[in-house]
Amino acid sequence: MRALVYAGRGRRTWTEVPDPAITDPRDAIIQVDTVTICGTDLHILAGDVPEVRPGRVLGHEAVGTVAEIGAAVTSLTPGDRVVASCISACGTCAYCRRGIYGQCRQGGGWTLGHLIDGVQAEFARLPFADLSTYKLPAHVPDEAAVLLADILPTSYEVGVLNGRVKPGDTVVVIGAGPVGLAAILTARLFSPTRIIAVDKAEPRLRAAKRLGADITVTPEDDPLEIVRSVTGGLGADVVIEAVGTPATFDLCTTLIRPAGRIANVGVHGAPVTLHLEQLWAKNVTITTGLVDTFSTPTLLQMLESRRLDIDGLVTHHFPLEEFEQAYDVFADPGRTGALKVVLGRRPAPPVVDETVA
Amino acid sequence: MRALVYAGRGRRTWTEVPDPAITDPRDAIIQVDTVTICGTDLHILAGDVPEVRPGRVLGHEAVGTVAEIGAAVTSLTPGDRVVASCISACGTCAYCRRGIYGQCRQGGGWTLGHLIDGVQAEFARLPFADLSTYKLPAHVPDEAAVLLADILPTSYEVGVLNGRVKPGDTVVVIGAGPVGLAAILTARLFSPTRIIAVDKAEPRLRAAKRLGADITVTPEDDPLEIVRSVTGGLGADVVIEAVGTPATFDLCTTLIRPAGRIANVGVHGAPVTLHLEQLWAKNVTITTGLVDTFSTPTLLQMLESRRLDIDGLVTHHFPLEEFEQAYDVFADPGRTGALKVVLGRRPAPPVVDETVA
Amino acid sequence: MRALVYAGRGRRTWTEVPDPAITDPRDAIIQVDTVTICGTDLHILAGDVPEVRPGRVLGHEAVGTVAEIGAAVTSLTPGDRVVASCISACGTCAYCRRGIYGQCRQGGGWTLGHLIDGVQAEFARLPFADLSTYKLPAHVPDEAAVLLADILPTSYEVGVLNGRVKPGDTVVVIGAGPVGLAAILTARLFSPTRIIAVDKAEPRLRAAKRLGADITVTPEDDPLEIVRSVTGGLGADVVIEAVGTPATFDLCTTLIRPAGRIANVGVHGAPVTLHLEQLWAKNVTITTGLVDTFSTPTLLQMLESRRLDIDGLVTHHFPLEEFEQAYDVFADPGRTGALKVVLGRRPAPPVVDETVA
Amino acid sequence: MRALVYAGRGRRTWTEVPDPAITDPRDAIIQVDTVTICGTDLHILAGDVPEVRPGRVLGHEAVGTVAEIGAAVTSLTPGDRVVASCISACGTCAYCRRGIYGQCRQGGGWTLGHLIDGVQAEFARLPFADLSTYKLPAHVPDEAAVLLADILPTSYEVGVLNGRVKPGDTVVVIGAGPVGLAAILTARLFSPTRIIAVDKAEPRLRAAKRLGADITVTPEDDPLEIVRSVTGGLGADVVIEAVGTPATFDLCTTLIRPAGRIANVGVHGAPVTLHLEQLWAKNVTITTGLVDTFSTPTLLQMLESRRLDIDGLVTHHFPLEEFEQAYDVFADPGRTGALKVVLGRRPAPPVVDETVA
Repeated sequence: MRALVYAGRGRRTWTEVPDPAITDPRDAIIQVDTVTICGTDLHILAGDVPEVRPGRVLGHEAVGTVAEIGAAVTSLTPGDRVVASCISACGTCAYCRRGIYGQCRQGGGWTLGHLIDGVQAEFARLPFADLSTYKLPAHVPDEAAVLLADILPTSYEVGVLNGRVKPGDTVVVIGAGPVGLAAILTARLFSPTRIIAVDKAEPRLRAAKRLGADITVTPEDDPLEIVRSVTGGLGADVVIEAVGTPATFDLCTTLIRPAGRIANVGVHGAPVTLHLEQLWAKNVTITTGLVDTFSTPTLLQMLESRRLDIDGLVTHHFPLEEFEQAYDVFADPGRTGALKVVLGRRPAPPVVDETVA
Repeated sequence: MRALVYAGRGRRTWTEVPDPAITDPRDAIIQVDTVTICGTDLHILAGDVPEVRPGRVLGHEAVGTVAEIGAAVTSLTPGDRVVASCISACGTCAYCRRGIYGQCRQGGGWTLGHLIDGVQAEFARLPFADLSTYKLPAHVPDEAAVLLADILPTSYEVGVLNGRVKPGDTVVVIGAGPVGLAAILTARLFSPTRIIAVDKAEPRLRAAKRLGADITVTPEDDPLEIVRSVTGGLGADVVIEAVGTPATFDLCTTLIRPAGRIANVGVHGAPVTLHLEQLWAKNVTITTGLVDTFSTPTLLQMLESRRLDIDGLVTHHFPLEEFEQAYDVFADPGRTGALKVVLGRRPAPPVVDETVA
Repeated sequence: MRALVYAGRGRRTWTEVPDPAITDPRDAIIQVDTVTICGTDLHILAGDVPEVRPGRVLGHEAVGTVAEIGAAVTSLTPGDRVVASCISACGTCAYCRRGIYGQCRQGGGWTLGHLIDGVQAEFARLPFADLSTYKLPAHVPDEAAVLLADILPTSYEVGVLNGRVKPGDTVVVIGAGPVGLAAILTARLFSPTRIIAVDKAEPRLRAAKRLGADITVTPEDDPLEIVRSVTGGLGADVVIEAVGTPATFDLCTTLIRPAGRIANVGVHGAPVTLHLEQLWAKNVTITTGLVDTFSTPTLLQMLESRRLDIDGLVTHHFPLEEFEQAYDVFADPGRTGALKVVLGRRPAPPVVDETVA
Repeated sequence: MRALVYAGRGRRTWTEVPDPAITDPRDAIIQVDTVTICGTDLHILAGDVPEVRPGRVLGHEAVGTVAEIGAAVTSLTPGDRVVASCISACGTCAYCRRGIYGQCRQGGGWTLGHLIDGVQAEFARLPFADLSTYKLPAHVPDEAAVLLADILPTSYEVGVLNGRVKPGDTVVVIGAGPVGLAAILTARLFSPTRIIAVDKAEPRLRAAKRLGADITVTPEDDPLEIVRSVTGGLGADVVIEAVGTPATFDLCTTLIRPAGRIANVGVHGAPVTLHLEQLWAKNVTITTGLVDTFSTPTLLQMLESRRLDIDGLVTHHFPLEEFEQAYDVFADPGRTGALKVVLGRRPAPPVVDETVA
């Protein structure tokens, strides 16, 4: 089969590799129907994730059709259409028993396209298939379902639920890339009074408005002044960090009100400065997290009942064989306006790009 | 009356000042019977708390007898014996309505010995007396009750409750000064499997053992190796920071297990480095806080029913007129072995010092 | 002044009574601008609430203008426009300190129109005015604001929050009277997958649809079959009881899924049968409650930011002097289609009745 | 092999049956080393559990040695010493994914000695062995470990955790049989101010004192008066029902304070009357539950670190071949003083009976 292979720092190629095979009775093999690219894949390409070795098939977000199942798989049948989650779960370790699948101690967690071959390929092996896939109802389209593999549960669990967004809150989301936009969309489920999106790029702020932000600001607009002006000087109830830099994390801590919550979703490559000399008495809560995917069935149900409108999150479509071009588009959002770039086995619909004029 | 007055950086004096008087109908005046000194008072003396101006009477932890009440005070009567909490509460602002008294927006919070004159004096004015004092049963001695003014609720709320200590947990308490020791004592209420105390000073570690630590280590003992060895390599469920330095905060983040909680209690004077490049995917929760005192009635009940044994927390006693000597002893614990130093109007019992040989 | 006075079982009259006066420094007097009638008032008239004695002015839901304040009132000024909450709070007892105002032990809780004279009058005395009133922004109309006095916080706290409604849930609301409808409206804030309303009256089910129910059923429609059919046979995640009879409570327990929550909001006049022989192993949670009003500021903010659309809850308007006719209309909803009946000092707008054809 | 077989209403016999065999790759076979009898077994014998058919091997609480494992079992090895939990868990259904193993929808939950053959036998088949057994450290004796199969997690999860016992609480436990006593023991882990045990039998009240009750009362002692006298008239914070009759449930609702929690643990065979006409405004929470066993690893750790002292819970020991006599003793506690009756393959220690003089 063909797959997108990491070939060392800065190099990736759509090339021929051996077909995956079942190696554990809990595995399943899927034919990949729809797949997407994550910002983390760009980090890997930049060489920032050293445990990913050259030769690795990348990718951890796909929708596919079950082709084969191991002897111990009980909930899947060949032909089932499933979302392949970015997180696998052994189901028996102390973390999995508590639903913290992202921290699985026995071979699960984030392994696809990281420690084992991933899903940017024509076929993929999924470990612990019973707990790592979700069957899809016919009327949820691939383009929506593929967002369940990572960005919807990540933004919801690590951003919105960790931040404990609730009715009446003022929520700030810093970063309006795909994950930040998904955080805006899923924060809406709790009816905050207002969501304020912060990003440098105007097209992304326009997408934020479409997905539910009430106020959009650039870092140059003085976010602190704006947050204070709408909260009687107090600050935000919840700030969600969806960028992953010291400066954006620092902004979170200046915008938060006493007794507020900062939920970090961004992937950080460097330490940050935490101003405990200002925060020690302020009753703040700061959380970090890898997604655990406990919310995936709920989010699937929300998609199914049309309570989550993902319109605008997917900006580009490619056939699998144009994987390298898709990476080029995704890696240069300033020029292309890319948010999520989706690739499919099926003939791609015409490219729709709503975020840039 | 006489009081301990801050006279500018490094200077404090027990001197004559005007008697306090009721200035708001919600005030009460108490005669101070027993009072203690806090590490924060030393910070003020070091000039680290610039909002404290020369001339300020220090102190925010006392037991006293109500001498006079304002017209709007409904729950106190002259002659009542009360603990004067370090936190005052207006009771009507949005924070007070939710029990977050430490963040009161209308004149409460930590004001005693800070923004208004405090309780290291023969008499003191307590604002919002109904919500800022707690009546004492006769058989709870002053020496125990005075710990309800600050260190017991602080360590319990900001350390133990924020850290969500629960049965079975491995809890690390970094710093075995008075607040850290109180955290050990109150963490015990939730039956963790083990409490590990970390401090440089052997006498403090001995006090930690007496108050309930199962394991005591110095920073030189390689706390990480010890925590891993008793937790199957995972790390601690909860780490409570009770020092307030960048190094001790950093130690917290290395000792915590995935999905663990770090509760900062220490007063910090400088920013810390937070290694989000290691922690972003680790599901950790970090909390900060000023005490809100919602737990004071419960802790009083625990003292009353003898479920909290504070034995060993108070190391020195002085009469009020020896306030300056008391500060000398408290400020030099390495030499004196001081933990809490208590001063009283009543004749002091003989000095008992159990922490140093 | 004139007021609606309870004159013994079945008798009420709009008549002349003495003006209220401040009796405690924490009181305020309001001029009543807008007031409504509660189902509980009908219970009182039926003689079901024996602690209400003849001569009592009824009513616990009003919007008014502050006319006079006691010496200890700090947050109000004559001329302020406020909602008078059905619940008063001393602010200092153990319950009030924890925000459980409905269970106040020192003279608060539900007293208006119950243990003291109420607000169905031209003027009213409000005890503990600082914690029992909420200032209104100009652009929230009286007709919306008066719902903050009782039915919005009651349905939200006792129904939706006690039931822990969350995204993805199937929620059943039994009873589509004013409180049940408000439960539907406020449950929507948490984005459940579906809300199923159960009521005998078709006009009320139509109102339920308008306010956010996805499915409406009468008891004759076999609610159990319908709930099972949409939940894969499991049952509802949350059932909110908003009627107050043994039969409707029993229905709740048959509709609930294993590990579901039943939130009772209905006022019961008789014991119910609880089938513990079926429920003991089913992990259900049953809650009861009087409103505590901690959510009133949040709900006011939701009204203010137009995230709660109360359209359709108020069906009839009367001037104060037609209070007796208003009771007649409210007491006979089968004929009149009445939901909330609102009376005002200001000239009433034309009667709008959207619930019956 | 030999096993204790249900032979229809009122009849049970220790007799020869076929050896169990693995029927699913997730099964394990254990040799039963230590086993006990549950009150539920007596209910089965009384014919109260009609889904149990004659011929069924009873029993759901054992410690054993793994004899054989199915192909899909990953965490066990023959020779491992394990506790066999009363609850099995498929690990993949919606309930198991959330840790609610007692409500497993795919063949787990309580099945042993109920829907499939149980563990009162020389050997037993355990379905879903990875999630239904817990490996035992050498120094936790069988007699303690066997309590992890049911009564310790049941009383802790369904009683203490559902009741949200916390420091400072007044906790009433109604019924001082094995489960009630285990509730007293595990409630202690949260340092309530006082635990009040209610039972008719003085020997059981003496056992309650030994296991941690502060106050013991019989129903004739007027529990309401006693609870009020120690709580300033308020009532208990938490009441745990551990009997299972209408009268004892009713007592719970009279003893509870406003905003208190009633946790039902008792197995009920008949409906109860719930006085909602008194409770509707009282903010009470009532919970029911079958154990989910999520706490079993924690409780095992507590036994291991000697933070749970079960001394006195096991009153009688028998060899397996005296199973019928053991039932006789367990079924007549009034005469025998039996609490838990333990049977073992190994030579039994001398009978110790501490509860009756």
